Amino acid sequence: MIKAYAASLPGGPLEAFEYDPGVLGITEVELDVLYAGICHTDLGMIDNDWGFSQYPLVPGHEIVGRVSQLGAGVKSLQIGQIVGLGFHAGYCLACDECNSGDHNLCAAARPIMAGRHGGFADKVRAEEASLVAIPDSIDLSSAGPMFCAGVTVFNPFLQFNIKPSDKVAIVGIGGLGHLALQVANAWGCEVTAFTSSGKKIEEAYSLGAHHTLNSKDPDQIASAAGKFDLIISAVDVSLDWRLYLQTLKPRGRLHFVGASAIPLDLTPLDLMSAQLSLSGSMVGSPSTMVKMLDFFQRHDIKPVVEMCYFDEINDAIAKLRNEKVYYRLVLQHR
Amino acid sequence: MIKAYAASLPGGPLEAFEYDPGVLGITEVELDVLYAGICHTDLGMIDNDWGFSQYPLVPGHEIVGRVSQLGAGVKSLQIGQIVGLGFHAGYCLACDECNSGDHNLCAAARPIMAGRHGGFADKVRAEEASLVAIPDSIDLSSAGPMFCAGVTVFNPFLQFNIKPSDKVAIVGIGGLGHLALQVANAWGCEVTAFTSSGKKIEEAYSLGAHHTLNSKDPDQIASAAGKFDLIISAVDVSLDWRLYLQTLKPRGRLHFVGASAIPLDLTPLDLMSAQLSLSGSMVGSPSTMVKMLDFFQRHDIKPVVEMCYFDEINDAIAKLRNEKVYYRLVLQHR
Repeated sequence: MIKAYAASLPGGPLEAFEYDPGVLGITEVELDVLYAGICHTDLGMIDNDWGFSQYPLVPGHEIVGRVSQLGAGVKSLQIGQIVGLGFHAGYCLACDECNSGDHNLCAAARPIMAGRHGGFADKVRAEEASLVAIPDSIDLSSAGPMFCAGVTVFNPFLQFNIKPSDKVAIVGIGGLGHLALQVANAWGCEVTAFTSSGKKIEEAYSLGAHHTLNSKDPDQIASAAGKFDLIISAVDVSLDWRLYLQTLKPRGRLHFVGASAIPLDLTPLDLMSAQLSLSGSMVGSPSTMVKMLDFFQRHDIKPVVEMCYFDEINDAIAKLRNEKVYYRLVLQHR
Repeated sequence: MIKAYAASLPGGPLEAFEYDPGVLGITEVELDVLYAGICHTDLGMIDNDWGFSQYPLVPGHEIVGRVSQLGAGVKSLQIGQIVGLGFHAGYCLACDECNSGDHNLCAAARPIMAGRHGGFADKVRAEEASLVAIPDSIDLSSAGPMFCAGVTVFNPFLQFNIKPSDKVAIVGIGGLGHLALQVANAWGCEVTAFTSSGKKIEEAYSLGAHHTLNSKDPDQIASAAGKFDLIISAVDVSLDWRLYLQTLKPRGRLHFVGASAIPLDLTPLDLMSAQLSLSGSMVGSPSTMVKMLDFFQRHDIKPVVEMCYFDEINDAIAKLRNEKVYYRLVLQHR
């Protein structure tokens, strides 16, 4: 039996929940959960924001675990090995996206929280292909958030061939944004943080920003006209995106990693004269996670975490709901 | 004096208008106008759709001309040479965009119809840097539209590294779209035409489409789910873009060359799971025009034109306003 924490109804508290995971699949791996980050997506799944949550629902998709059981066909991992597990727990491994190394874009990619149970538990299972070995030099207690927040902000730098000579702005300095600042700085870019939180200004500099601008001050935004090659938005609110587009250079890109369902209120004409692009992405492929871990260790990029215990999980979730987290909560066992 | 056709007020008819262009600038060139295409942008300028029209306004920005006068500093052109002139009649030649070969993205690029007079005239002037020599083998009577419509649809193939193995859809088979079909086919792509006009279906095949779909039939659109690497929209109306996004492959792009000012009604979430991009562009740089002319002549790509005479100009404009043109009108002198 696996001892987990589950919501039994939308928006409900997490309660102790035991389940029998059944026979281990041929390509499945069971992990002892060491650490689990808490992401806004966990809240969205608890709350059934996207309409596909099934209850009881065990959240948790920023997992650091130790391999404890291997399916008969698993070839790349060993018992005792430390691995990371993110949003996806399996891929079809047969489609063009999987064959091209874009597993996270596989139409049949399986979110760990839908169809199986997540990592707020003593153990968790996932397909071999979704697990990424964590190098020895990575601090394990803060590594969990790399596998969702970390790869989500690292991925665009690879996908869009961002150059160290580029100027990059990050909108929203929270769980995603505080990692995006570190990545952009280590990538060699000039980095600007857009934030409306006064107390985050100093922190933004310490995280790698060279400049900060108030994300809600039109004059400050306008002062950056034509400046950025790339803006990464990590907010899930709506801002005056037309104004933000004016801060892009010709050929610039406004890229969304914050899961907003609010219409953008932009027109084709807004994009045409300066040949601008809008885009979005979430997480990244296993190959991208490997590159991320290598890059993060070489540049000492770490999620800034607050540790808490699994038996405090509802307090931790309340803290995240109230936006009181700097910058990521990580659960550990006592 | 230059003998032109000008609108004297927004939406007004074009009337005979003479003006003295003054002393020829050092880097300016004067052309005898041989042919002038009529573009929807001419209508927009006549009607002051974008709020910066000045009257009297001489439209015309798809010009084929013969060099008749050279400014003292012009080095690259000779009297008698045949050249093309598009939307821009000059660039700053000093900014990063100009220095990078992206002249059309120069913030100080000068539209021919704003600040000087366009090509619905016997003569027209432009800066040397905006003129592109037309190779001998290009048919001059149909070449005018290449310098606006042609380069506008050719440009995205270069800008976004479209591969011959890609699948490309064109939405809207008119002045822009009929050229986009030819370009996409010659580029080596699999080409799908979206059109709501029954009689354009056969024409779309003859222009290079391998498949056609009804742009207003949700079932037909849905049948192409996950198919396209690139969709080029050449329409200026609003379609159900969320439905069109579903026809893109992961990493696909919906690119707008049709100047619509209607909000897209899309959210960041619509872009995220399949890592989609939205973008827009207009015209292209002189360097892109040179590549276009080379590509068009090698692949025998031509605007499909109806010829009419300059003294029939108001009839021609009425025809364009009434969407009765297949596919481009070109004015010539008697």
